[in-house]
Amino acid sequence: MLQLYFFPMACSLSSRIALMEAGIEARYHLAHIWTKKVVDDDSDFRSVSSKGAVPVLVLENGDRLTESAAVLQYIADLKPELGLAPPPGHPDRYRLQEWLSFVGAEIHKAFLFPTFWYKDDAALAKPRARIGQTLSIPAAHLATREFLVGDRFTVADAHLTWTLLLLRAAGVDVAQWPQLADYLSRMQARPQVKAAIGIEAALRKTLAA
Amino acid sequence: MLQLYFFPMACSLSSRIALMEAGIEARYHLAHIWTKKVVDDDSDFRSVSSKGAVPVLVLENGDRLTESAAVLQYIADLKPELGLAPPPGHPDRYRLQEWLSFVGAEIHKAFLFPTFWYKDDAALAKPRARIGQTLSIPAAHLATREFLVGDRFTVADAHLTWTLLLLRAAGVDVAQWPQLADYLSRMQARPQVKAAIGIEAALRKTLAA
Repeated sequence: MLQLYFFPMACSLSSRIALMEAGIEARYHLAHIWTKKVVDDDSDFRSVSSKGAVPVLVLENGDRLTESAAVLQYIADLKPELGLAPPPGHPDRYRLQEWLSFVGAEIHKAFLFPTFWYKDDAALAKPRARIGQTLSIPAAHLATREFLVGDRFTVADAHLTWTLLLLRAAGVDVAQWPQLADYLSRMQARPQVKAAIGIEAALRKTLAA
Repeated sequence: MLQLYFFPMACSLSSRIALMEAGIEARYHLAHIWTKKVVDDDSDFRSVSSKGAVPVLVLENGDRLTESAAVLQYIADLKPELGLAPPPGHPDRYRLQEWLSFVGAEIHKAFLFPTFWYKDDAALAKPRARIGQTLSIPAAHLATREFLVGDRFTVADAHLTWTLLLLRAAGVDVAQWPQLADYLSRMQARPQVKAAIGIEAALRKTLAA
């Protein structure tokens, strides 16, 4: 059985959404990204992955795969019939990779990451100044589309959905981009997306308490 | 013929290296990433790509592909016999995607980007504090390997090579990680890598003059 190391509401939520949309059962291990402890047994998360970051997907053969862009494509390819990623070699597969990169680098790493990890205002001012321009790209794209790639839900949507949820927590009002707000509502209405978010939101509250 | 919009020594250098390693001829257009002008004809680069960022690869059918992770995989898949990316579905293909994501998000977007775009020290202090931990990951990986993925040069090596070159310009002494310094020397000794860097370094000097 696959195993996913996650932290509730962190970027590993995209991987949980992908697993649940794919109907793949997995064992989930809560890894605390600040203390670097695996909550199951208080072991050192850095011995699971030297990066000390989620997601980490433990494959059936014990290999460990990191980085959302890779983990999400791996999960999608386990169930090709579901179309969670376009088939390898299809022009849309590169579009999927393009969106995974944009969401991962421009929204997550250039904005959400400093927002949640850097504590001083000076370090945050520049990322904050750029986020509007960044979000205008998917907003324009989604003005005429239901999903990021092709005409069905893919793991790129799982990843963008997570970033949009976190933007609210980061003080960015997604309602400024009605296309993004509408998209987020549509994605959150999907039963598996809703269930995945519900599980992690509840866990996150427990941690905070 | 493929066309690549690039800025000399920016991240589009990885795509040029990939094209040259693949032996694929292409037309290259210099797009100025600060002025957002295409140098050929002084036209608006944002009309080529609303992101205003390089690389932009114009495909044979006129479609435009952005984001290094997608562009590099597209180029590699044009010449599967060269092994610039492991075949789709091969376990190493996900390792390639893992490294493309790590290099693109952690080294490029979390460090090189703020270093070159943010002008105040406060905005730079936090990214600078993290880069050592970040670089320890590929350094440890390369302690026993010649290349990032498998036993041959892939587009992930093209991308890491570019970031290592830029680290020097960003004031990070790569010699602190002998495995990375050795790796960079090996990559720079490859004729196509050396030629690609030579072309762009010369162009960059012209621009700066």
